[in-house]
Amino acid sequence: MKSSPPVSPLAPEAFPELPAVAGVRLATGACGVKYKDRTDVLLAELAPGTSVAGTLTKSKTAAAPVLWCRDCLAEGEARGLLVNAGNANAFTGVKGLEAVEASVQAVADVLSCRPSRVFAASTGVIGEPLPYERIVEHLEGMAGNLVPAATPEGWLAAASAIMTTDTFPKGAAKKVKIGDAEVAIAGFCKGSGMIAPDMATMLCFIFTDAKLPAGVLQAMLSPGVEKSFNAITVDSDTSTSDTVLLFATGAGAEHPEITSADDPAVREFRHALDAVLLDLAHQVVRDGEGATKFISVTITGAEDDGAAKRIGLAVANSPLVKTAIAGEDANWGRIVMAVGKAGEAADRDKISIVIGGVPVAETGMAVDGFDEAPVAEHMKGQEIDIQVDVGVGSGRATVWTCDLTHGYIEINADYRS
Amino acid sequence: MKSSPPVSPLAPEAFPELPAVAGVRLATGACGVKYKDRTDVLLAELAPGTSVAGTLTKSKTAAAPVLWCRDCLAEGEARGLLVNAGNANAFTGVKGLEAVEASVQAVADVLSCRPSRVFAASTGVIGEPLPYERIVEHLEGMAGNLVPAATPEGWLAAASAIMTTDTFPKGAAKKVKIGDAEVAIAGFCKGSGMIAPDMATMLCFIFTDAKLPAGVLQAMLSPGVEKSFNAITVDSDTSTSDTVLLFATGAGAEHPEITSADDPAVREFRHALDAVLLDLAHQVVRDGEGATKFISVTITGAEDDGAAKRIGLAVANSPLVKTAIAGEDANWGRIVMAVGKAGEAADRDKISIVIGGVPVAETGMAVDGFDEAPVAEHMKGQEIDIQVDVGVGSGRATVWTCDLTHGYIEINADYRS
Repeated sequence: MKSSPPVSPLAPEAFPELPAVAGVRLATGACGVKYKDRTDVLLAELAPGTSVAGTLTKSKTAAAPVLWCRDCLAEGEARGLLVNAGNANAFTGVKGLEAVEASVQAVADVLSCRPSRVFAASTGVIGEPLPYERIVEHLEGMAGNLVPAATPEGWLAAASAIMTTDTFPKGAAKKVKIGDAEVAIAGFCKGSGMIAPDMATMLCFIFTDAKLPAGVLQAMLSPGVEKSFNAITVDSDTSTSDTVLLFATGAGAEHPEITSADDPAVREFRHALDAVLLDLAHQVVRDGEGATKFISVTITGAEDDGAAKRIGLAVANSPLVKTAIAGEDANWGRIVMAVGKAGEAADRDKISIVIGGVPVAETGMAVDGFDEAPVAEHMKGQEIDIQVDVGVGSGRATVWTCDLTHGYIEINADYRS
Repeated sequence: MKSSPPVSPLAPEAFPELPAVAGVRLATGACGVKYKDRTDVLLAELAPGTSVAGTLTKSKTAAAPVLWCRDCLAEGEARGLLVNAGNANAFTGVKGLEAVEASVQAVADVLSCRPSRVFAASTGVIGEPLPYERIVEHLEGMAGNLVPAATPEGWLAAASAIMTTDTFPKGAAKKVKIGDAEVAIAGFCKGSGMIAPDMATMLCFIFTDAKLPAGVLQAMLSPGVEKSFNAITVDSDTSTSDTVLLFATGAGAEHPEITSADDPAVREFRHALDAVLLDLAHQVVRDGEGATKFISVTITGAEDDGAAKRIGLAVANSPLVKTAIAGEDANWGRIVMAVGKAGEAADRDKISIVIGGVPVAETGMAVDGFDEAPVAEHMKGQEIDIQVDVGVGSGRATVWTCDLTHGYIEINADYRS
């Protein structure tokens, strides 16, 4: 048994103050699914009429709760959310679906709703049957403890209950106006790569008290996730359970009816939602296993934005780039290598690379006699900025990752089952 | 300055005895391109009429010598080969091409042939101009030292001169018959991932004294490379300089004319070539940076062979699978994850996994109460065998990799430029 790893050096100073979101009540429980002496289950109750949108892992070996959510999302309505940490209920065959159905039914009973209104997510060990009875037997008690998600403590308790080997709880929020009505967006997530002792997962839940139809929500969420959670990588390994759900209770201040994500009245809301998504995604990177540096990679001059993102992810996923940065080495040769392997158009003789604001390579060659001192200084910091222009078009994208250190190997290899 | 790393624990006991290959003469030189007190340049002279085939990196930022070889391969004839270690002549812009042209011209002068008959490869630091003058000034002396590639010492010297941070020289050979004539296939290669202090490369050169047209050679080489060098991975990072060249001097015993790679007379030859390619490719994995385990991943039941290979590489490239194996943990949950992220068809509820010959998962679930002792014993060994059936078709492929250890981080991060 190893002791808990220290809190990531890249963690924010404190869990943020999250606002009240009308129509959301939260409760946590210590059900002993796997962990002892800590909360490990979250129950959220959502006001009648809550709409929901989501993005789920594209893994071909997706976990049972992911398949459940996929079906429920088609109906677009939510009354409850059940999340457990410690067991991913993945690769559990028919038993996995039975576990979801039984626990969702139990939530439906205590919340008096249809099972298809209850969303579920699990994170933790894979391949072991989920001992759902331990969850079910606590549900009635948890339902009695439901409190409005109005206090920092309420949110913090929820964000903490779903952690696996995260080293800090992750939350973010914004308040914005739709018309004259102020609405809140608040959310939390967990994840720091695919974590020992088995695989873990990125789960993210966002709540707003705005009144927005499911189709509008989905039209806002999908592009937002594309630029945030789908633009981060810790170790290139995709979980079987990755889940982002966005709930809109409609229980807040009244605002004009919204029927399209392109309505100018929700422009501010969309920006705020994007910001919350990006904030949470960045926190996942900042809790990346063994991370000591937060790395931004911006690609410009690509054939299109999609190509830019694929090149950016090739750089961000390169073990050689990530180890060089861990070693505080501005090794732009490895960046060139990673650009080359991405398979996207790049003009070898027009590539330029800027590290920490200093051009180190231009027109396909090292910049003769560039000043290495500010670059070396930049590499010693915690925030690393890499910009690459690949010289063929106007596509651009930014992705984020962390460095690859001994800490990653310690977490993932220095362990015997 | 750090000391040389110890020889890989997975290295063969000794460099193999390679046979004479008529029509090939070799010389090495200590030109001081970057390294001191060691040979760093290889010159090979090939008999007139030598045909050549090759496979080159698909990197979009390919090095200057790769572009040169690509052009020369179109003519299919070779008289010389020049290889240097210590500088990759990559990302060197127009100066890179000038360096290739000048050094190739110098080889053409000493061998009295056209420049387009001279193949070139470079491995080592990226982004620094190649000091080709140091090579050129030694060429005449090296040409005077050319000796038939007949002795283990001759081959060993060649294989050693092209090493960068390889921990052992890599060679392999076979003797086979075409008709009644015995011909030899011998080759050597270098590479152990993309190596500190900068990027290095996989270079492989194979020689035969059989008489085979370039088209036939290429038709044999491409599928052979697909199943060997293109089926190995150390860290998923593709070099700007990867090069495999196959030379046929036609200077050996006379054999029936061969005009097609499908001629039954060369069936044995093809098998031998495949075996030499696979032997060399495996040696690269066995010298993988920080490697302590040699891992075979066989995928069956995929939609087709290509899908099987992509799934196999997703498993072999997964940092979580590789760190689990480093930790001697038979973590099949991470294997399921990697299968899922490959993006190829897989039936989650039919997947079966066999580790070290023991079924650990069947029909999408852990095998109830399987005997863990032999699996644990297998994980402690140096040769790890993983078989996964994904349950949708009859496609199959095997790929090879090594584990991901602290050694990899040490080599690539614990270094300041």
